[in-house]
Amino acid sequence: MKVGFIGLGAMGSAMASNLVAAGYQLTVWNRSDAAIEKLVSLGAKAVRTPDRAAQGDVLHSMLANDHAVREVLLDGGVLDAMDPGTVHVNHATISVALARQLQEEHARRGLAYVAAPVFGRPDVAAAGKLNMLVAGPSAAIEKTTPLLQAMAGKLWPMGEAPERANVVKLAGNFMIVTAIESMAEASTLARAYGVGAAEFIELMTSTLFASPVYQGYGKAMAEQRFTPPGFALPLGLKDVMLAQEAGFAEQVPLPLAGVLRDSLLEALADGAEGMDLSALARVSARRANLDQRSKD
Amino acid sequence: MKVGFIGLGAMGSAMASNLVAAGYQLTVWNRSDAAIEKLVSLGAKAVRTPDRAAQGDVLHSMLANDHAVREVLLDGGVLDAMDPGTVHVNHATISVALARQLQEEHARRGLAYVAAPVFGRPDVAAAGKLNMLVAGPSAAIEKTTPLLQAMAGKLWPMGEAPERANVVKLAGNFMIVTAIESMAEASTLARAYGVGAAEFIELMTSTLFASPVYQGYGKAMAEQRFTPPGFALPLGLKDVMLAQEAGFAEQVPLPLAGVLRDSLLEALADGAEGMDLSALARVSARRANLDQRSKD
Amino acid sequence: MKVGFIGLGAMGSAMASNLVAAGYQLTVWNRSDAAIEKLVSLGAKAVRTPDRAAQGDVLHSMLANDHAVREVLLDGGVLDAMDPGTVHVNHATISVALARQLQEEHARRGLAYVAAPVFGRPDVAAAGKLNMLVAGPSAAIEKTTPLLQAMAGKLWPMGEAPERANVVKLAGNFMIVTAIESMAEASTLARAYGVGAAEFIELMTSTLFASPVYQGYGKAMAEQRFTPPGFALPLGLKDVMLAQEAGFAEQVPLPLAGVLRDSLLEALADGAEGMDLSALARVSARRANLDQRSKD
Amino acid sequence: MKVGFIGLGAMGSAMASNLVAAGYQLTVWNRSDAAIEKLVSLGAKAVRTPDRAAQGDVLHSMLANDHAVREVLLDGGVLDAMDPGTVHVNHATISVALARQLQEEHARRGLAYVAAPVFGRPDVAAAGKLNMLVAGPSAAIEKTTPLLQAMAGKLWPMGEAPERANVVKLAGNFMIVTAIESMAEASTLARAYGVGAAEFIELMTSTLFASPVYQGYGKAMAEQRFTPPGFALPLGLKDVMLAQEAGFAEQVPLPLAGVLRDSLLEALADGAEGMDLSALARVSARRANLDQRSKD
Repeated sequence: MKVGFIGLGAMGSAMASNLVAAGYQLTVWNRSDAAIEKLVSLGAKAVRTPDRAAQGDVLHSMLANDHAVREVLLDGGVLDAMDPGTVHVNHATISVALARQLQEEHARRGLAYVAAPVFGRPDVAAAGKLNMLVAGPSAAIEKTTPLLQAMAGKLWPMGEAPERANVVKLAGNFMIVTAIESMAEASTLARAYGVGAAEFIELMTSTLFASPVYQGYGKAMAEQRFTPPGFALPLGLKDVMLAQEAGFAEQVPLPLAGVLRDSLLEALADGAEGMDLSALARVSARRANLDQRSKD
Repeated sequence: MKVGFIGLGAMGSAMASNLVAAGYQLTVWNRSDAAIEKLVSLGAKAVRTPDRAAQGDVLHSMLANDHAVREVLLDGGVLDAMDPGTVHVNHATISVALARQLQEEHARRGLAYVAAPVFGRPDVAAAGKLNMLVAGPSAAIEKTTPLLQAMAGKLWPMGEAPERANVVKLAGNFMIVTAIESMAEASTLARAYGVGAAEFIELMTSTLFASPVYQGYGKAMAEQRFTPPGFALPLGLKDVMLAQEAGFAEQVPLPLAGVLRDSLLEALADGAEGMDLSALARVSARRANLDQRSKD
Repeated sequence: MKVGFIGLGAMGSAMASNLVAAGYQLTVWNRSDAAIEKLVSLGAKAVRTPDRAAQGDVLHSMLANDHAVREVLLDGGVLDAMDPGTVHVNHATISVALARQLQEEHARRGLAYVAAPVFGRPDVAAAGKLNMLVAGPSAAIEKTTPLLQAMAGKLWPMGEAPERANVVKLAGNFMIVTAIESMAEASTLARAYGVGAAEFIELMTSTLFASPVYQGYGKAMAEQRFTPPGFALPLGLKDVMLAQEAGFAEQVPLPLAGVLRDSLLEALADGAEGMDLSALARVSARRANLDQRSKD
Repeated sequence: MKVGFIGLGAMGSAMASNLVAAGYQLTVWNRSDAAIEKLVSLGAKAVRTPDRAAQGDVLHSMLANDHAVREVLLDGGVLDAMDPGTVHVNHATISVALARQLQEEHARRGLAYVAAPVFGRPDVAAAGKLNMLVAGPSAAIEKTTPLLQAMAGKLWPMGEAPERANVVKLAGNFMIVTAIESMAEASTLARAYGVGAAEFIELMTSTLFASPVYQGYGKAMAEQRFTPPGFALPLGLKDVMLAQEAGFAEQVPLPLAGVLRDSLLEALADGAEGMDLSALARVSARRANLDQRSKD
């Protein structure tokens, strides 16, 4: 089976590596060259234009956002270059509006479209342990399951409509940002009473909230170590806004998302563009003017 | 050492039982008789008035809320009846305003005051595995540590000011309610796109949010089983409002708490008084008018 | 008719002056002496204790808040000192909880209780042009109407239950604070695009929002003149919280009030304790970090 | 001077009529024919394609939203058909993103671009009393001022950057929707205490809030008359979202806008698509479950 892979950022590179490691003959393309070398050294074949990566049986793509997906796959002519019957597996976190459009664009060209966004950071991707949401036509999913299994710790089937996988990804990221804002506000309250943030977070994340999300972001918050970003704050805002758009499209109010949006925006206005989502703690602390007090 | 215990609700009863089991000579009092029998059968001694439970070396109390604490301990004369030097360990979830007042009331009478609120439900209390926050004068804490260890899986020292333990308890409960509202909104969004609530929650609580709080309330939400309540919705609202009061007292804005308060109030207005906190899912679904659609 | 007046702050003093000017024989009391002199010079009689001001046919009171009302009227024994049949007209902005309690306390003592909170600042009070909400037993209202008319530009009957007048006062103040926050956020948005706050506010308050509230607070905001306060920011927060309490008591969610509460709290944390409500503009500007930009 | 006018909805039609009445030679185009007849009967000349309306010295356009502006002016080739030096005055309420794009598109073609959005309903437009915000190159504004004065009661200069007029329009509409939500919440609170909505709104809008916005929407709310819409609820949501986008682009948090968005979305989910913005009162009442009580 000939397989293509477009988009070799931190995530895409780790995922593609696992396909090569599983023995697949992989053709790869990336906008910049840096990431390609590593894949080539592992045995992948590099091509100069993305449409050439789309000439096989299956194309995987892991592009950064709606804009990149539109630019490369639609405007860049990749879909136009694919043979009918080819399967495209899109791993990107995109809007449900684009998900719906992509479904139509593939159908019109006789292409099979599978949405397979993932939960997990680059190190989880490298270990092949991603949680992967999978939605699309069952025949296409069946055909690509071995590929997906080479990259994921677990596959979560979400039915035939690709947008379902996308909305679940957005809903999950919305829950992640809420969890972080919740720790930010709660630890600010504790600090105002003289309880150290590290102390408070240690307690919470080793008892009630002993789960990866709380522990990961909680640690960064406790140590006030906001760079380099694990999950960059502007990307978190982007995902919250995509969740709001998905809510708008189906008339679902999301009151928590409104709070998150404003806190994230306030963080950006205060210079957190290059920081991790855990920098939401800075916003809470500033609102309470904690640093001007002698506490904590 | 003579030990008293006031307040034998589901939590207090389980905690007191562990003191008896650890070999302490326990004198107990409760407003209603029902709960007393069990303790007496285990070996505790029952008294008719709460002040008589306060005649020993240490008094534990686990009363329902600010009102009950004021009524029994302050207005009811229990503190007035205690000998100077006696230690009072208060396990209740109370406001920081009352925590501050109690500290003064004890100090004025020469009594030692320890705040020791707990995280955990009655079954955890029965197993002696509570997470217990402990704040107060170090001598008093040292003296009572064996008692506390008989009831708790782990003690979390919070310094000398009792209010610190109380604010941490409130901050923790605020995080719990936020987590539930977050699942409610996110699963409503997923449902609007045809993804079942159970399916969505199973995914989230076995991956990113694999922690007790999400799993417990998530299960109730997935099964739409809101009675009998594990954590009664009106009590959740009470705790969110206590967190807001604590925020007000120290000028700490808590934007998420504002959202929680309104969602909980809306739940109550819709008849959820006897339901579990997970009934927040009903509010989200009603806002999106999910039940009038043909989805999920 | 013998009339008493308790509470001679800026508002009470102006109102009492109008009663004297209308020819009533007025007995006055105030906690501090300063305000009394002016009334005495106009012809009122000063007494040393508040209960003595309550010996006539009608007692008016204009105390600062719940605490002052409880302290002077309930704990201070004023109600206990009043003869059955006496009418008490309470002009203070108080909680509906206290309104309900006062109704009971008066009924138990055979006293007639009228709630008559007002809209208007001291200068409006001095001009006798207050808008006065009036609720209570019709006989008592009939008896006191000439007195009320001496102080008010217009009386707004609100039925027999005193709490109705109080909740309308709170709902009105909630609308006032919302209007101010709305101008604060909107003018911050305009400023971020290079439109001056004064320019924007001039436009809005001379067209769509050409009403006293917008014009008054808008002017202060445009001139960034936040002291001395017309409506002190901490009092605005108090009233928003009373509106929230009133909402809680009858299960009415007030999402806007949650936003107001947090913005006001943030203002206080940033040192606005002695400022006017229009200082909400500082909070909006700080969130957007406007002063660190070169705009406006 | 030859003048064109594109977009003859209720607003555009009234505005164009005033240009004809002022003696201008007007060439008009509209997507549907209905509105054209009236203008022709007044003396305007109708053309079959929009580019032909753009052949004069000045082109006015009053299209419904971003989509219509893009479709007609950009994709439809109108700008491409205009001669260098022609002035285009855009009266539509559009996003600041599109405002910025339009500025570039005009500059690239050597066209002068003036943004001139308006406040006022069709009846105000018909009376020539609109408040018109005007931003653009001073020469173009000078040239078109007589035209603008024929349509507006007052011109409000906003500088050279067209986007400034657009953001002020959005900020103003954001204030309008906030005012309506504020009345909705406040009157729901009053109703829960037995005060009629009409009674409450009459009080507020004849005293503190005696301005057009409150009086207009307040009347609809008091009478629970939500159709036909004066300001259609979905358009209000659109404008709130445009204000949020404008806030996002310049990192300005707008906490009130988050509340508005969710209330409007909840209204839509409950079937208010064809209703007026004042139907926000239905949402507040439903949240408090007012209709299931026996009150009001």
